[in-house]
Amino acid sequence: MRIAQVSPLYEAVPPKLYGGTERVVSWLTDALVDAGHEVTLFASAEARTRAQLVPVRDQAIRLDPAELKSDLAAHLSMLHEVRERLDDFDIIHFHVDMLHFPLFADCAGRTLTTLHGRLDLKDLAGVYRRWREFPLVSISYRQREPLRAANWIGTVYHGLPARLCAFQREPRGGYLAFLGRISPEKRVDRAIAIARRAGLPLKIAAKVDHVDRAYFHREIEPLLDTPGVEYIGEINDEQKSDFLGNALALLFPIDWPEPFGLVMIEAMACGTPVVGWRCGSVPEVLGDPACGRIVDSEDQAVAALEDVLMLDRRGVRGVFERRFTAATMAASYVDLYQRLRTAPESELLLQA
Amino acid sequence: MRIAQVSPLYEAVPPKLYGGTERVVSWLTDALVDAGHEVTLFASAEARTRAQLVPVRDQAIRLDPAELKSDLAAHLSMLHEVRERLDDFDIIHFHVDMLHFPLFADCAGRTLTTLHGRLDLKDLAGVYRRWREFPLVSISYRQREPLRAANWIGTVYHGLPARLCAFQREPRGGYLAFLGRISPEKRVDRAIAIARRAGLPLKIAAKVDHVDRAYFHREIEPLLDTPGVEYIGEINDEQKSDFLGNALALLFPIDWPEPFGLVMIEAMACGTPVVGWRCGSVPEVLGDPACGRIVDSEDQAVAALEDVLMLDRRGVRGVFERRFTAATMAASYVDLYQRLRTAPESELLLQA
Repeated sequence: MRIAQVSPLYEAVPPKLYGGTERVVSWLTDALVDAGHEVTLFASAEARTRAQLVPVRDQAIRLDPAELKSDLAAHLSMLHEVRERLDDFDIIHFHVDMLHFPLFADCAGRTLTTLHGRLDLKDLAGVYRRWREFPLVSISYRQREPLRAANWIGTVYHGLPARLCAFQREPRGGYLAFLGRISPEKRVDRAIAIARRAGLPLKIAAKVDHVDRAYFHREIEPLLDTPGVEYIGEINDEQKSDFLGNALALLFPIDWPEPFGLVMIEAMACGTPVVGWRCGSVPEVLGDPACGRIVDSEDQAVAALEDVLMLDRRGVRGVFERRFTAATMAASYVDLYQRLRTAPESELLLQA
Repeated sequence: MRIAQVSPLYEAVPPKLYGGTERVVSWLTDALVDAGHEVTLFASAEARTRAQLVPVRDQAIRLDPAELKSDLAAHLSMLHEVRERLDDFDIIHFHVDMLHFPLFADCAGRTLTTLHGRLDLKDLAGVYRRWREFPLVSISYRQREPLRAANWIGTVYHGLPARLCAFQREPRGGYLAFLGRISPEKRVDRAIAIARRAGLPLKIAAKVDHVDRAYFHREIEPLLDTPGVEYIGEINDEQKSDFLGNALALLFPIDWPEPFGLVMIEAMACGTPVVGWRCGSVPEVLGDPACGRIVDSEDQAVAALEDVLMLDRRGVRGVFERRFTAATMAASYVDLYQRLRTAPESELLLQA
């Protein structure tokens, strides 16, 4: 199939540092190439990809040192380029929220749109109601809740390349891991409380965004003196595999409607089980008890840790391989692309 | 003529507090109604207008207490509403930068787009080159510089209602005025230096945005102890007329490519002359020496003040009445609307 992938331009594909969506676009694109498809990637020029790249900006926006830039203008220019090549593709897969709707309404049936963010924003319903012709994919069923009536045709969980995170059968660290951003909705304070009550060391690998500095200094920094707690700052992709693989378990005590939560499946790929809060996508991602536990309170989390530390790490990896590889993700998307090419639109709506 | 005005949704029309673009849209809309046109305003629901209002959001975005909102989604929904009523209008006048381009490309000849912001952003040229069919209006000639090759069909200076700012023949304040935001590009520090060297009191009416707080505390607050300097904080529209009208002159010592600079014509409406830096739109707005002076240095500014304090304030008001009333602005736009309705597009490009 001739497939276009249209990435956001905020980060490189894959991102140099932080950036979830562009990372997933990168993995999906390469997995589709591996599956034998003819794939074109619209992205900023630093992209590393096995697909045909159409570079639509000299570099990704966030780390571009230019002082004055317009992310709206950059994305509109990209969409114009996509539109000009419309006939080159059987399917155009958008990862830019709703921005392409005005430009592709007359060929919406040849497009697929994955929504990567939270959907409980005040103004969204109006847009998804007005441009109902666009087939949408959610990255968890929970993500759809605020927009149940939108034109969903499927849920496809994120996946990552099978060899990206090394499986670690015998973790050498003896610690619990917290990985992410330090921000109120990520609840690193809960992770600290759980680790202390469980009598286990906690290592925190996390970045602090500018907007979260005050929260970090006020709420979290004082807790970092807790015995057994070690804060190691932001880590890169290479360090991540070591950090997660050598952990006894990952704590994911979030307090917001997480649409997916990549770090959970990165841990699982290393064989590291996860204890996650019943919130957002967590019950879906951790649905198989072979890979971790879903909890509602600190008490439950402490109790769950005892179970989780007994899990067979090969079983954790097994859940990852079955549900969350890039190849699985790509196969699910190819199914949807095929359905779009064959089914009449009215039927698609019914199958959602 | 049946005219649609499409406002940004960030502020109410007119704004409750700060907000330049929505203020100009409000004045233009009412002036077009006064001139006998059938005008429809697309804006948030609190708009106060003599036109037919199509409320497209329950309230303006910036002061909406909702925590999670999407300005992109809100504006796209509005544009969808405009599109649905296309046949109701002879001309659609957009004030939302480039966001409408994808949705109105097939009827661009019936649209007019006023660009209200600075245009020296990295990504803009690509958009204005790709959607060249949209006729554009600048708010000063200088504003066009970074995008000279775009499809300009005119420059229309902002105007305000003739009676909005009361003419003050005998100012009672004996002070120089600075009005605006406290931010590096507005150079209130220069205003303080000029006032001190001229031996005149300076009153500063300005808001401090969150992003400018550090600059304010570090660079400006220490200067507020300067003898003769008085900082009175943010003022509203009612206070503005008094504040500007009772000043000897307005100082406008900016250091950025100001696209227009409403405060200059507000001062002129009160009869208060302006000393402005040769920067952005200033040479155009202060082009008539009867209303003020254009300077390049503090030395020149101090010298210019002597001249300016001798100006006949009726002459200052005269420049305002001739060049910068809302009625003048509306008449200029009506000329452009007429040209769009009659001239073939190729000719429009030549007349720019």
